[in-house]
Amino acid sequence: MLNVGVIGYGYWGPNIVRNFSSLDGARVVAVCDRNQNSLRQAARAFPAVRPTDDCNEIVAAPDIDAVAVITPVSTHYELAKKALQNGKHVFVEKPFTASVAQAEELIEIAERKALKIMVDHTFLFTGAVKKMKQLIDDDMLGELYYYDSTRVNLGIFQHDVNVIWDLAPHDFSVMDYLVPQRPSAVAACGKAHFNGLEDMAYITVHLGGNMIAHFNVNWLSPVKIRSTLIGGEKKMLIWNDVDADEKLKVYDKGVEIVNNEGIYDLLVSYRWGDVWVPRVDQVEALRLEADCFLDCIVNDKTPVNDGHAGLRVVKLLDACNVSLRNGGRLVTI
Amino acid sequence: MLNVGVIGYGYWGPNIVRNFSSLDGARVVAVCDRNQNSLRQAARAFPAVRPTDDCNEIVAAPDIDAVAVITPVSTHYELAKKALQNGKHVFVEKPFTASVAQAEELIEIAERKALKIMVDHTFLFTGAVKKMKQLIDDDMLGELYYYDSTRVNLGIFQHDVNVIWDLAPHDFSVMDYLVPQRPSAVAACGKAHFNGLEDMAYITVHLGGNMIAHFNVNWLSPVKIRSTLIGGEKKMLIWNDVDADEKLKVYDKGVEIVNNEGIYDLLVSYRWGDVWVPRVDQVEALRLEADCFLDCIVNDKTPVNDGHAGLRVVKLLDACNVSLRNGGRLVTI
Amino acid sequence: MLNVGVIGYGYWGPNIVRNFSSLDGARVVAVCDRNQNSLRQAARAFPAVRPTDDCNEIVAAPDIDAVAVITPVSTHYELAKKALQNGKHVFVEKPFTASVAQAEELIEIAERKALKIMVDHTFLFTGAVKKMKQLIDDDMLGELYYYDSTRVNLGIFQHDVNVIWDLAPHDFSVMDYLVPQRPSAVAACGKAHFNGLEDMAYITVHLGGNMIAHFNVNWLSPVKIRSTLIGGEKKMLIWNDVDADEKLKVYDKGVEIVNNEGIYDLLVSYRWGDVWVPRVDQVEALRLEADCFLDCIVNDKTPVNDGHAGLRVVKLLDACNVSLRNGGRLVTI
Amino acid sequence: MLNVGVIGYGYWGPNIVRNFSSLDGARVVAVCDRNQNSLRQAARAFPAVRPTDDCNEIVAAPDIDAVAVITPVSTHYELAKKALQNGKHVFVEKPFTASVAQAEELIEIAERKALKIMVDHTFLFTGAVKKMKQLIDDDMLGELYYYDSTRVNLGIFQHDVNVIWDLAPHDFSVMDYLVPQRPSAVAACGKAHFNGLEDMAYITVHLGGNMIAHFNVNWLSPVKIRSTLIGGEKKMLIWNDVDADEKLKVYDKGVEIVNNEGIYDLLVSYRWGDVWVPRVDQVEALRLEADCFLDCIVNDKTPVNDGHAGLRVVKLLDACNVSLRNGGRLVTI
Repeated sequence: MLNVGVIGYGYWGPNIVRNFSSLDGARVVAVCDRNQNSLRQAARAFPAVRPTDDCNEIVAAPDIDAVAVITPVSTHYELAKKALQNGKHVFVEKPFTASVAQAEELIEIAERKALKIMVDHTFLFTGAVKKMKQLIDDDMLGELYYYDSTRVNLGIFQHDVNVIWDLAPHDFSVMDYLVPQRPSAVAACGKAHFNGLEDMAYITVHLGGNMIAHFNVNWLSPVKIRSTLIGGEKKMLIWNDVDADEKLKVYDKGVEIVNNEGIYDLLVSYRWGDVWVPRVDQVEALRLEADCFLDCIVNDKTPVNDGHAGLRVVKLLDACNVSLRNGGRLVTI
Repeated sequence: MLNVGVIGYGYWGPNIVRNFSSLDGARVVAVCDRNQNSLRQAARAFPAVRPTDDCNEIVAAPDIDAVAVITPVSTHYELAKKALQNGKHVFVEKPFTASVAQAEELIEIAERKALKIMVDHTFLFTGAVKKMKQLIDDDMLGELYYYDSTRVNLGIFQHDVNVIWDLAPHDFSVMDYLVPQRPSAVAACGKAHFNGLEDMAYITVHLGGNMIAHFNVNWLSPVKIRSTLIGGEKKMLIWNDVDADEKLKVYDKGVEIVNNEGIYDLLVSYRWGDVWVPRVDQVEALRLEADCFLDCIVNDKTPVNDGHAGLRVVKLLDACNVSLRNGGRLVTI
Repeated sequence: MLNVGVIGYGYWGPNIVRNFSSLDGARVVAVCDRNQNSLRQAARAFPAVRPTDDCNEIVAAPDIDAVAVITPVSTHYELAKKALQNGKHVFVEKPFTASVAQAEELIEIAERKALKIMVDHTFLFTGAVKKMKQLIDDDMLGELYYYDSTRVNLGIFQHDVNVIWDLAPHDFSVMDYLVPQRPSAVAACGKAHFNGLEDMAYITVHLGGNMIAHFNVNWLSPVKIRSTLIGGEKKMLIWNDVDADEKLKVYDKGVEIVNNEGIYDLLVSYRWGDVWVPRVDQVEALRLEADCFLDCIVNDKTPVNDGHAGLRVVKLLDACNVSLRNGGRLVTI
Repeated sequence: MLNVGVIGYGYWGPNIVRNFSSLDGARVVAVCDRNQNSLRQAARAFPAVRPTDDCNEIVAAPDIDAVAVITPVSTHYELAKKALQNGKHVFVEKPFTASVAQAEELIEIAERKALKIMVDHTFLFTGAVKKMKQLIDDDMLGELYYYDSTRVNLGIFQHDVNVIWDLAPHDFSVMDYLVPQRPSAVAACGKAHFNGLEDMAYITVHLGGNMIAHFNVNWLSPVKIRSTLIGGEKKMLIWNDVDADEKLKVYDKGVEIVNNEGIYDLLVSYRWGDVWVPRVDQVEALRLEADCFLDCIVNDKTPVNDGHAGLRVVKLLDACNVSLRNGGRLVTI
């Protein structure tokens, strides 16, 4: 039985407690939050859990095996470091850390002490992303041309990070998981209309093999759009996360240059075939992720969303900030 | 009665001939194309029109008052110049010219000879764009925050221009018409996967007053998306051009910083109100545009899509090319 | 403080317990189910609630003021009757009873003993239905022409009732609430493809004032459709319950006979105006309904979904069965 | 070369003239309409065609081989009869005739004189219907359970026929083509809100093999819906004719009774698989239909939409009228 302590019981914390509580091999023994109202809600919803407003009662508790850090990003490093130093495995909310150096240090400590780090890249455990991973691994899309992501809505303004650090970790982690090519350079531009933090931004990531990725993130959109287009040589697909029934559509469409000696119209051939909407698994992603964390600890496995995956996302976020501060200049990774 | 000669009878030319023919005050007297098959089709569809494969029989014909240049952009300058020099008004397909200098010279000739130039920015004459213009002019959106446009589909690859020069003129001309702020700088990046011409690109335009515009153009998308989000202080809207019935939706949604001294959650106020789908005029835009061209000639008016509007679009396109060739660097307009 | 006992902890029971538990003025003191596994789940989710498999421990418990009957319809009458006879207010799952006589008897007992009956017509408490009620009461739609409802999906087959008794109570209760005209006759036809109970059916209800209503209910549809069209003289509307953001659309569209002396085309006038998507309240309907039940008991009010409303729905269901057994014959109400 | 004469140049006539004109093996030699304005439009659009306001100049013209009757249904019988008696093949707008007897007489004349009748059931030549025909013929859907059609919008009110005779012929002809079972009985109900002709109606058709069909036709709907659900044992499909890109969706969904001895939940098995959107042919249906008419005449073939198909549709329409006049009573075919 894995004993879990959870730090942070705000928007996302309750889901973490609920899912770790639902596992046969784990239980949540303590929850920490500085907000007394949040603690009262935790106590009411989970009477068996020990509430505390002192994080040291989590990171240093003898009866706790693993700590979930579900707090603002600025606190991740310090809390995760304490937990690791006390011999706890850590589950850290995305983004992993506020800087590349912090992520590298946490990875180093965990590896030295043979502890597990999992970064909460929840989307990797959704049915749609797992199906896309399978399609790409099976080479159904062929050579990849582009990855084009839009994640916008009238969002909850964050007060410590800009829209890139809030929304892009979802998409960076999915791209990192799906696309074999590695980022070589990043450019980002955005605008802050209210509190000095960018509330909308556009990010371009150049990858190996002539591939390009683009991310549109926006807290100021009247509609909620969460869609990703992936264009490949053999097939193209759309992942529309707000569509309840048809989250994934695979298009047998494409373009071929039949004869690239000339430049005339007739030499381009278009393919317009069927569309396929594969059934995707509807199990709650966070439940599968919690289960994976438990399995990695018990059976000494490495999760796909380990500290290194978290670090790769932080490197992209960090490069975005450098580019933002330099007028959208291309920043080499 | 305005006598019109049309040069170019490919994809778009038949629509031009049909619409100018349908006006009470105009008639198409001659059509020119180098392709004999196209000429035969013109002769069958419009028996009263004189077919020719020599453009001089149009630009220099004594019985022709106005010339429509519906040819690839590389030929616009030469054909329009000849027509103007022969005292003809000109209607030029978008984009106006292949360079800023060409556009400026054509404007100069036309003004000197008191002739009209109209650039075929057809979208300005659609019901949706006219309605948006009215909403913005009436200050219903308040201060504008952003203009975010997507125009993608499995497109007809062009062989003389990249996807920016093919698709972005539509959106640049609409933004130019709707948004009072003027562009100050442009950045563009894209990829060419086939014939050396970019088949997908992302463009950012910085405008006065902290406003930003972004354009996603792509010939390699499995789905056809033509949508524009405009975010304003008071209201936000979507123009979805592929929706037959609800092309325009106006959202009474927004964000206000109630108290900008602090940075805490409670100080941001969200507004979630009704949505309004205004009825938009369904008359064929090209017909209204042809009618406007006639009216401007007969009554000596200046169209909104005159040579200067065409030039402003060409300046943006030109800056995109400079940015593309310089790794996405920001290019001042 | 109202003490509530809940009988039936299957699919819907947990929502009932959760919502009554969340009210300040009520608490759930006991839950009854014959299924031990369901009882264990209730005990785990609501540790403070007394579990029992004997319904008499609910209907006759001295500390219980109101009983929620969330069981199959065949048991409603007996359980509600016992509860009423023991002086408990009752909240009964839809449909109210299995027959008209049962409903009438329960109403009679409740009125004699000054007890409240509420039938769980949850949809009456949704934001969309409340907004439609307001629009119709304000005469925004004008004279009503028709009510056309579709409620289909690959549904959970019931084993005690056909698709009409399962799905149509939702729509009958909404129509009963919204439409001032009263039903005069009903016709129903359907097919049973599997277990002898109709899995799809079409129902026509004739109402006063030349109005007609139609209901399409189907457990065998590959897609989930829950939409209702209401046509009126002044305006028309769609209630699309599966649309997360635009549940209600009001169309300024219509037809007028300008001159009904002749029968020529020009004398019909069509109106194509704007569409309006009113914001609707997003509060959980069942919570509002539970709150209303409490309020009616405490303050001696009559809910819209009282026993008489439940009876009107049962009369329609009963007429459907008669029509089904007589080849779709029109049955007078 | 087949010489065609067209009677009726109103809403649909121009499409008939255009499509027959575009065939290599046919030409339109004459057009008849009583409305002089329509004749002028025909003359302008098709200068080579002989205009006339006397239908005898079509049905009796020595140079005409086939007559297209594109007039109101009340005139079909007389015009088609004259044409057949003069030895012309006939192409008749749907519905074929105003009565069963008329249809039977026309078929008899045509067969006696070895002439072709084609009824303009255009939908049979669309890519979507042809694809559905193939799927059903290949037994991909398995045993058919139901056919559920909705064809509603703010329609053009007809002045000679009710909404059933206007809209249902489309759907009756498609069902007749796709579904192997034959209708055994029909029930219809509707309402006339304006000019005494039903402007909305619901039709139920009982077919062999426990199959049922239902048709919702309405001229008073604020939205345009043209969708048909077909439920089968193995697969289910939706034909959504207003969706430009995904007209046909095939669902690998269904229900199976695993063990029909009992009536418990667990014995029903649900299948939720992939969705498949087959590419459908985009060629104009009317062009293919015109081509088929020509082919049938030249090569002495029988079209699927021959007089007998037209008669079957008229029998359904006629039964609808009988049912309408008898309070929705089931009428045996």
